[in-house]
Amino acid sequence: MTQIDPFRRRRAIEPRSPKESYFSPHTSLGPGNEFDAIRRLLERWGPRARRIGDDAAMITTLGERVVVTSIDSSVENVHFRRDWLTPEEIGYRSATAALSDLAAMGSTPVGMLVALTIPESWGSSLDAIGDGIGEAAAASDALILGGDMSAGDVLSLTFSVIGTAREVMCRTAARPGDRVYVTGRLGGPWSALQDLQAGHAPADLARRRFARPVARIREATWLSEHGATAAVDVSDGLAADLGHVAAASRVTISFDLEKLPLIEGVSPIDAARSGEEYEIAVTSQGELNVTEFESKFLLGLTVIGEVTAGDAEVRVMHHGARVEAPPGYLHSATLR
Amino acid sequence: MTQIDPFRRRRAIEPRSPKESYFSPHTSLGPGNEFDAIRRLLERWGPRARRIGDDAAMITTLGERVVVTSIDSSVENVHFRRDWLTPEEIGYRSATAALSDLAAMGSTPVGMLVALTIPESWGSSLDAIGDGIGEAAAASDALILGGDMSAGDVLSLTFSVIGTAREVMCRTAARPGDRVYVTGRLGGPWSALQDLQAGHAPADLARRRFARPVARIREATWLSEHGATAAVDVSDGLAADLGHVAAASRVTISFDLEKLPLIEGVSPIDAARSGEEYEIAVTSQGELNVTEFESKFLLGLTVIGEVTAGDAEVRVMHHGARVEAPPGYLHSATLR
Repeated sequence: MTQIDPFRRRRAIEPRSPKESYFSPHTSLGPGNEFDAIRRLLERWGPRARRIGDDAAMITTLGERVVVTSIDSSVENVHFRRDWLTPEEIGYRSATAALSDLAAMGSTPVGMLVALTIPESWGSSLDAIGDGIGEAAAASDALILGGDMSAGDVLSLTFSVIGTAREVMCRTAARPGDRVYVTGRLGGPWSALQDLQAGHAPADLARRRFARPVARIREATWLSEHGATAAVDVSDGLAADLGHVAAASRVTISFDLEKLPLIEGVSPIDAARSGEEYEIAVTSQGELNVTEFESKFLLGLTVIGEVTAGDAEVRVMHHGARVEAPPGYLHSATLR
Repeated sequence: MTQIDPFRRRRAIEPRSPKESYFSPHTSLGPGNEFDAIRRLLERWGPRARRIGDDAAMITTLGERVVVTSIDSSVENVHFRRDWLTPEEIGYRSATAALSDLAAMGSTPVGMLVALTIPESWGSSLDAIGDGIGEAAAASDALILGGDMSAGDVLSLTFSVIGTAREVMCRTAARPGDRVYVTGRLGGPWSALQDLQAGHAPADLARRRFARPVARIREATWLSEHGATAAVDVSDGLAADLGHVAAASRVTISFDLEKLPLIEGVSPIDAARSGEEYEIAVTSQGELNVTEFESKFLLGLTVIGEVTAGDAEVRVMHHGARVEAPPGYLHSATLR
């Protein structure tokens, strides 16, 4: 339907030497303390660190598909608290968070490696955690390829996910004139987190969105095949994640609070800051076929803003007036 | 020099479907509580978990090289204590441990993903940890492809490493009649650990072997190209790691304590149990060219035993008599 400039995507590059041509120099990340620490490390690593800043890394192979890989940790008292989730939900949610990074690239999962740090007090929950991991793998049609297990004082689950793609969606591909879309409805995890932290029981739907997120693998592949160019999964919060795309693409991304698709009872500004959604935000030069997407996946696809030339930043708009962007959901803070 | 039966290695298999033919059913692990927990998880995951039990997983691509990947965590108070190592050593050693899994497969690293859990009290050490990671990456000629950073109560470093190989060395490839070789000299980390746990300063060489291990990437590639078939890196202890090879290949592996290459002042039985060595043990049908290896790498290569038909187990021999195998160095115990 849409004519896409082929240079807007990163395509498979034939490696000329065993390594040097696999990666282009690393790209930028949005603002935030967490990302300042990453920038500091990147500076120290210099040219050894390549093409950092997408949801996943790409390894170009000699075949026609690229290998896409990412790593993601879920740590007790940072990403969840023991009394908030069942062990099965902890396993499922942590694995889904990692698989979502493959979705954000438009990549099809091959499998995952699982590194578990299991304190003694969690030993009897290992089977249930494993069941949750298995469910997440099944939901994304990913295999479990290996892993590592350690003792430790705090439960921690790290997943390395590996997928392939013929063509990937990158954060660098947004261009002035693009429309911005987001899948699903936002705000559930934020709303659930507020209630849990205050000691209340969250509403059913909000809790489900927090405890049982879905990696939008098939949806993202469809978007990639139907004209989406840049993409990010909403893990730090919509405003923060679009900030990464703006930084990587060196464009201004504006979105309208009144256009955000909301979970019932959540304000637009809270929806814009809600992290760990694992919905997918994309940019597209042409109009995406929302009707076809929604009837195929029974999931909303909403146009929420646009890309313009200008400072590499996100502008959060409310009925035409710019409002302050909400801070992202940072995983450098500890839940108490 | 040596004629190798081509069916003893796992070769690149052309994938017939996007996923189903990438992996053969999972193989076995040696004895131990840590491995019982893994076996339990594998049972729950059923056919979704494939070809588990090697040092790394293989993804067959359409090109002529396979993609090899592994995940490895280093956790404070499990793999190291804060007062035992500098932050730079912690970064270097943790990354090296992960890269060593690629060596064990005879794979050449492409790069690594880095997931760090950094407690506040470690914040000021992040740069030094990063420097150590960068050094390890440089030593193995690996790129840093991405990562993830979280807060948390305990310092934890998880690395996903990705490499390629034309042909891999697998734990399943040992056959009766093979010789067993090991690189380097064993016992340093065990000796250092004993001293550190007793509050003594370790001897220089032992400390260096503990704090600054080397991933034997080039050495393992040479071994793979010159006739080695099965391989494992010595991370759980020689006896325990050869136990994994024996289980995976369904053979008996015997080695002689009096033949073990020792770090000065370490007993043969302690050398056989010393973990986190990151030396490489291989089996080979024919004799390996030890002189060529040693002059090329300035590193020992010692024949220590043989593979015979029989129960899938390791036999530790002392001047012809079987002695009890030492327990492995388990990472399911916490250092105190």
